[in-house]
Amino acid sequence: MTESDISIALLHYPVFNKRGEIGSSAVTNLDIHDIARLAKTYGLRKYYIVTPLEDQKELVKTIVSHWTEKKGGIVNPDRKKALEIVEIFNSLDDVIDDISEEGAAPVCVSTSALRREGCRSIFEIRELIKNNKNHYLIILGTAWGLADEVFDKSDYVLEPLRGNSDYNHLSVRTAAAIIIDRLLSGR
Amino acid sequence: MTESDISIALLHYPVFNKRGEIGSSAVTNLDIHDIARLAKTYGLRKYYIVTPLEDQKELVKTIVSHWTEKKGGIVNPDRKKALEIVEIFNSLDDVIDDISEEGAAPVCVSTSALRREGCRSIFEIRELIKNNKNHYLIILGTAWGLADEVFDKSDYVLEPLRGNSDYNHLSVRTAAAIIIDRLLSGR
Repeated sequence: MTESDISIALLHYPVFNKRGEIGSSAVTNLDIHDIARLAKTYGLRKYYIVTPLEDQKELVKTIVSHWTEKKGGIVNPDRKKALEIVEIFNSLDDVIDDISEEGAAPVCVSTSALRREGCRSIFEIRELIKNNKNHYLIILGTAWGLADEVFDKSDYVLEPLRGNSDYNHLSVRTAAAIIIDRLLSGR
Repeated sequence: MTESDISIALLHYPVFNKRGEIGSSAVTNLDIHDIARLAKTYGLRKYYIVTPLEDQKELVKTIVSHWTEKKGGIVNPDRKKALEIVEIFNSLDDVIDDISEEGAAPVCVSTSALRREGCRSIFEIRELIKNNKNHYLIILGTAWGLADEVFDKSDYVLEPLRGNSDYNHLSVRTAAAIIIDRLLSGR
């Protein structure tokens, strides 16, 4: 049996804003770079950036193509390799369709900074990935976190990360790094 | 025995630039925020930002004080708590002096993306921190990595992080997250 495929999706919609309403967040440039480099380092298939906003999609395409097709890739070929696995989609459903076209729907694992009923430990998901060959899609939210409808669509929810204190306010870049390392290092 | 203290230092000098020369790098805003939030989440004592450049120190002070003393802290009290542990110093020697004033010099653990002779595994440093009460200073470099003089001053060098591929180009924010989680999670 060959290994499971893993992809990561960063959702800018549907997410909560600071007032607890569901909306879209703006794309942060370093979310593109940091998570692409992380994904490439850990052998992920794709890094999906999800936003329905046309101007945001154009912005991400401009940044990515600078590194993959234009001058950036000549100056920094390592960055080119990382950004080549970035895909830009309108919605989580479109991401699921994209993966499904390769054969089977992904197993969706969403993440949350708050403990949700029925959430699974890192160890459980790590074992699942190891022992059940599938394409796993790890889903992270920007702003104040993923809307409930994303959890409803997910097969599993990962337990929140904890550090060594009561304080628990990591950036999504940091959370992605720790989650991917805990799930996949040494596999 | 109570626990070891841990601090983290991000050096913008002396570091290699892309031409292999030693120089200073510019401070990146999200390095301040992401690593401060990480440090606070994992219960670190201090996050030292090291640069000898006056304009860069002023910039960092302006950003940090926006969140710790001005409007930012009212809008986002969690960010205030994270940025309150940031200290800005001219040099690694000044950081070592600052820690030494509390009682004893720190045990310096420097990090590198390249394998250096005599480097120690994450497991070794994790056990060291657990079993020998000290103030440990984890040192990361920006740009193309720490200059040799930093390794000469260090008590230990940590082995490079590896993902699951030959590609290994993480941002310093991502590397900091994975190193701190591997060294300190669940302690």
